[in-house]
Amino acid sequence: MRFFSDNAAAACPEAVAAIAAANHLDTAYDGDAWSRRLDDAFSELFETRVTALWVATGTAANSLALAALCPPHGSIVCHRDAHIQNDECGAPEFYTHGAKLLLAEGVGAKLAPETVSDLLATVRDDVHQTQPAALSITNATEYGLVYTPEETAALGALARSRGLGFHIDGARFANAVVSTGASPAELTWKAGADALSFGFVKNGGLSAEALIFFGEEHRQATLYRRKRSGHLLSKGRYMAAQLLAMIEGGVWLRNAGAANDAAARLAEAAGPDRLLLPVEANEIFLRAAPQEAQALRDQGFDFYDWGPGEARFVTAWDSDPGEVAALAAAIRAL
Amino acid sequence: MRFFSDNAAAACPEAVAAIAAANHLDTAYDGDAWSRRLDDAFSELFETRVTALWVATGTAANSLALAALCPPHGSIVCHRDAHIQNDECGAPEFYTHGAKLLLAEGVGAKLAPETVSDLLATVRDDVHQTQPAALSITNATEYGLVYTPEETAALGALARSRGLGFHIDGARFANAVVSTGASPAELTWKAGADALSFGFVKNGGLSAEALIFFGEEHRQATLYRRKRSGHLLSKGRYMAAQLLAMIEGGVWLRNAGAANDAAARLAEAAGPDRLLLPVEANEIFLRAAPQEAQALRDQGFDFYDWGPGEARFVTAWDSDPGEVAALAAAIRAL
Amino acid sequence: MRFFSDNAAAACPEAVAAIAAANHLDTAYDGDAWSRRLDDAFSELFETRVTALWVATGTAANSLALAALCPPHGSIVCHRDAHIQNDECGAPEFYTHGAKLLLAEGVGAKLAPETVSDLLATVRDDVHQTQPAALSITNATEYGLVYTPEETAALGALARSRGLGFHIDGARFANAVVSTGASPAELTWKAGADALSFGFVKNGGLSAEALIFFGEEHRQATLYRRKRSGHLLSKGRYMAAQLLAMIEGGVWLRNAGAANDAAARLAEAAGPDRLLLPVEANEIFLRAAPQEAQALRDQGFDFYDWGPGEARFVTAWDSDPGEVAALAAAIRAL
Amino acid sequence: MRFFSDNAAAACPEAVAAIAAANHLDTAYDGDAWSRRLDDAFSELFETRVTALWVATGTAANSLALAALCPPHGSIVCHRDAHIQNDECGAPEFYTHGAKLLLAEGVGAKLAPETVSDLLATVRDDVHQTQPAALSITNATEYGLVYTPEETAALGALARSRGLGFHIDGARFANAVVSTGASPAELTWKAGADALSFGFVKNGGLSAEALIFFGEEHRQATLYRRKRSGHLLSKGRYMAAQLLAMIEGGVWLRNAGAANDAAARLAEAAGPDRLLLPVEANEIFLRAAPQEAQALRDQGFDFYDWGPGEARFVTAWDSDPGEVAALAAAIRAL
Repeated sequence: MRFFSDNAAAACPEAVAAIAAANHLDTAYDGDAWSRRLDDAFSELFETRVTALWVATGTAANSLALAALCPPHGSIVCHRDAHIQNDECGAPEFYTHGAKLLLAEGVGAKLAPETVSDLLATVRDDVHQTQPAALSITNATEYGLVYTPEETAALGALARSRGLGFHIDGARFANAVVSTGASPAELTWKAGADALSFGFVKNGGLSAEALIFFGEEHRQATLYRRKRSGHLLSKGRYMAAQLLAMIEGGVWLRNAGAANDAAARLAEAAGPDRLLLPVEANEIFLRAAPQEAQALRDQGFDFYDWGPGEARFVTAWDSDPGEVAALAAAIRAL
Repeated sequence: MRFFSDNAAAACPEAVAAIAAANHLDTAYDGDAWSRRLDDAFSELFETRVTALWVATGTAANSLALAALCPPHGSIVCHRDAHIQNDECGAPEFYTHGAKLLLAEGVGAKLAPETVSDLLATVRDDVHQTQPAALSITNATEYGLVYTPEETAALGALARSRGLGFHIDGARFANAVVSTGASPAELTWKAGADALSFGFVKNGGLSAEALIFFGEEHRQATLYRRKRSGHLLSKGRYMAAQLLAMIEGGVWLRNAGAANDAAARLAEAAGPDRLLLPVEANEIFLRAAPQEAQALRDQGFDFYDWGPGEARFVTAWDSDPGEVAALAAAIRAL
Repeated sequence: MRFFSDNAAAACPEAVAAIAAANHLDTAYDGDAWSRRLDDAFSELFETRVTALWVATGTAANSLALAALCPPHGSIVCHRDAHIQNDECGAPEFYTHGAKLLLAEGVGAKLAPETVSDLLATVRDDVHQTQPAALSITNATEYGLVYTPEETAALGALARSRGLGFHIDGARFANAVVSTGASPAELTWKAGADALSFGFVKNGGLSAEALIFFGEEHRQATLYRRKRSGHLLSKGRYMAAQLLAMIEGGVWLRNAGAANDAAARLAEAAGPDRLLLPVEANEIFLRAAPQEAQALRDQGFDFYDWGPGEARFVTAWDSDPGEVAALAAAIRAL
Repeated sequence: MRFFSDNAAAACPEAVAAIAAANHLDTAYDGDAWSRRLDDAFSELFETRVTALWVATGTAANSLALAALCPPHGSIVCHRDAHIQNDECGAPEFYTHGAKLLLAEGVGAKLAPETVSDLLATVRDDVHQTQPAALSITNATEYGLVYTPEETAALGALARSRGLGFHIDGARFANAVVSTGASPAELTWKAGADALSFGFVKNGGLSAEALIFFGEEHRQATLYRRKRSGHLLSKGRYMAAQLLAMIEGGVWLRNAGAANDAAARLAEAAGPDRLLLPVEANEIFLRAAPQEAQALRDQGFDFYDWGPGEARFVTAWDSDPGEVAALAAAIRAL
């Protein structure tokens, strides 16, 4: 019973079926019928004109977004625990040609205007330092917290006032949307975001993520960068078809809802004293002494140790209700 | 009836079935059961120990190979018409951090030791010029010619003697194997190759190519580069499963054979006078006056104009025999 | 008696004196009194507002200019024999983060609108190819030819019409100015140039070149790039002082005039039949059979063999009149 | 009376004289008589074979060293206050093609094995993180502290045991040598260093720094990188001549001794309670309330405010004894 991560879960039936349905000759790259529908479909979802591009990984989406927002001699403000800093082997530096990541603080990998302002205040405005050009947050965060529209907008306003592009790493954007009840628009461009890495793979996709730019400004250069980085697949229709299948029928919300619900059940079982952080999406961080962790493993539950005496559980769109109930009971019994 | 390119064809049933069969939870990235079998499976195919990595595009495979073989201050010898020069939007330059491509000549995009030597002779051995570090050929070439094992080995020997790494862009490697009747080993490491971009997508794959290094030397750095470039997919099992399904049952040879056979039928119909180049793989370049090209299009055949009075047709693993026969007849009737 | 190159000649007295005069404490980097005068001094020289920055090499000037004009996914049109292609070890690729150089033809390393247009016509306007973003010419060329204002303007008009930035590598710009009798303005911004690498080192400077942008657009990013590439010297006043000393008193024209005159004397001695190219600046390319070259060397003249049966002589600001006369006599006597 | 920084001071007479003495034709780039003596001269100084290259800035020296020691997908451990992190506009990232700087803690910008080990322990050994490849320290540090041979060797041993290259930013290496009384060898290769940025400009040089590699391993690639970054000056003899003049007569030690002595006089005047850090080289960090700082400025002393209530003074090789005495008296009188 694996609760390691949602990024290894199966692909949902709709994604698989969409791939099968797209399995016939069409124009290569992104000239096919599915890829050509992406802009419209995502524009409708976001209630504004967007540029929507498929890419194969969240790392590629994040890096292409950051390359659009930050020059090589610029810097990007993010949280010390951000995925772009810790889990992408320097992909942002590769794609931006060496921009620097500036690391801000905050509980649960969450930024706030104050922490960002404090960090910005340490940068001298001279040619000896890379100048901040972008702000990047993750919603839901790497620790399973969510930004509300208001929190996002506060950061967006700060970014705007300081001339920073604003990127959201939405590897678990669906979970944040479901958790907050906000619209995709409210959590993004209405809050000042310029770009969103809209994750599907952790949410039941097979191999496609969406890179969204609000507006057209960054489209053309990003198309070149996507090709140049080897991310323009020959048979793009399989990518686009997955994305369309998951947004057009609301599958993405259903999937995220299931993952969030499973997490909520675990959180309830754990109770507030055992939780390291509120459970707002599909990740649960628990206090668990070594013998407690072992006890859970002895019952067949797989998960990551986090810090000393800490454990991380992640639920997925297809977490088995029986397994979740069993884990909840086991946590309760610790 | 589309004869534009093999890179837009459907995925073959084995690839699709393999993806479906892999659709359950396993370890993320390349820790799954399929990915962990790649080295062994390809080592068996090549009769030597290889490093075998899945990537999503030939561009990524080529660029990762070249980044392993050439430093930023080096240069790469290739044909003037090579895909890496003309069709990857500078991806080799991106991945190598600015290495230079040196362009050699040759009929049908094919290099020979003499043309490579002539080019190398123009480079001064001083710090004012990037020094050649790699040789890259394409087999089958961008014009559908193939290198025999002997021709490949002659280039490999030259590369070795000049201290150059030797890369083969095998976007249509399967077609070359079938065409020459040589073994994969004879066309690669036995001929001195260090790296092969082993194409599957043009040959009926859905979304996976194999990057092969002969030996272990370049494995570790390439794993970092793959991650850093955003090419380490979360659910790598879908990539590995395709590749395994296509090599383990000989599907790749069957598919390439079908494409080559279809091309041979068209070549025979065209006759030697109309062919611009011998048809050795699955591409056919014809002389076709504008009114002739129009006549073919009027009959429903789609293809690319190449130069003035020239047309390119590409067959695929699933080219419809009836359509091929119809096209053959139409060409014959010109 | 060395006629290898002007880039190894002594520094002229004015440059040396200016350095000595600047040898006292002032603000570091480019905050000193000399550096702060550069914009005004060069703006006066060019009869328009320019951004004038010192750098230590022509390679740095060229590369910073190209990085301003061409994105990483773009390409730069230049002559096949351009210094940026053949003699900078890939510096343009380094500074532009991997842009591609597209090589055009032309006698004497000289481009013309037709050859540039022909080259541009080979580029497909799609994401698979890097798109031309800049045109770079060298005046005087690597073969000692000069572009007149009209020739420059024709290229500038073409660049403008195709959306290309226009850069002039003026390692021997002074020689071109003297040779054509045109004003600095006529040979640059009035002809459509966006940036000029204004060479001083070959013309009697000690260690400083000027990078000129016409207007302000590229100033700020270039200041960051200069620092980031390690070209912002701590004691910039020694750089600026050289440049000011050489332009404020017309020293640069005097020096170039001397070099051109010496070359003219050699050209006259050689006569039209022996010259490979017209001598329009300070380089002389001669037909010289091996025994003739040896005869010259036996008399103590040092120079480069160029192609088979060809020799290159370069005069400098301080070419000794006696040595020049002796060489002229020796050539005449061949 | 300026105590801003040593990097704006005049050039010492020996450096200026050496440039004048080198002002005649010799081979270009680094083929001249002076440049060809560098390896031997510095090898003698360091009592081992070194590769010694001139470059125009400490930023270039640091970045070329780091590019030799760290691949693009690696990371470099340095202090949070290191010059390479804060004052080079991302030059290390530019030259390494995007390596990441990992920031360790320590009083006075000084690292210790424990703080480095603690930082290394946070890095997971997997492809999702850049792997540490180099350690860089600054001696004397950015806060004027020095590493003894023993302290350096402890870090060198740690670097060796962890497979890290070891670089020393010696912008004020001369001051550290004089301060510790140790030999150049003891502070570098005998302590495990692979590369040293040997600063001369802050110590009375005009425009040249030395990049030292211990051994030959990194020579060739660095020669290409130096050219490629535009740091191979045409008239390299002026660079080499400065360096030779400063080391061959012990000028570098005399200069650093003068700067250190002046700083010691100020430190003594300040007394231990007012000093933020021990004064071990030529930088003095004082507590100075706003009105105290103003009082000093009113007497004509220029210096930087550091933090709130803090002031930085830097002495130089040519600090005027009278000015130093006046400042000492003024500090004493606060």
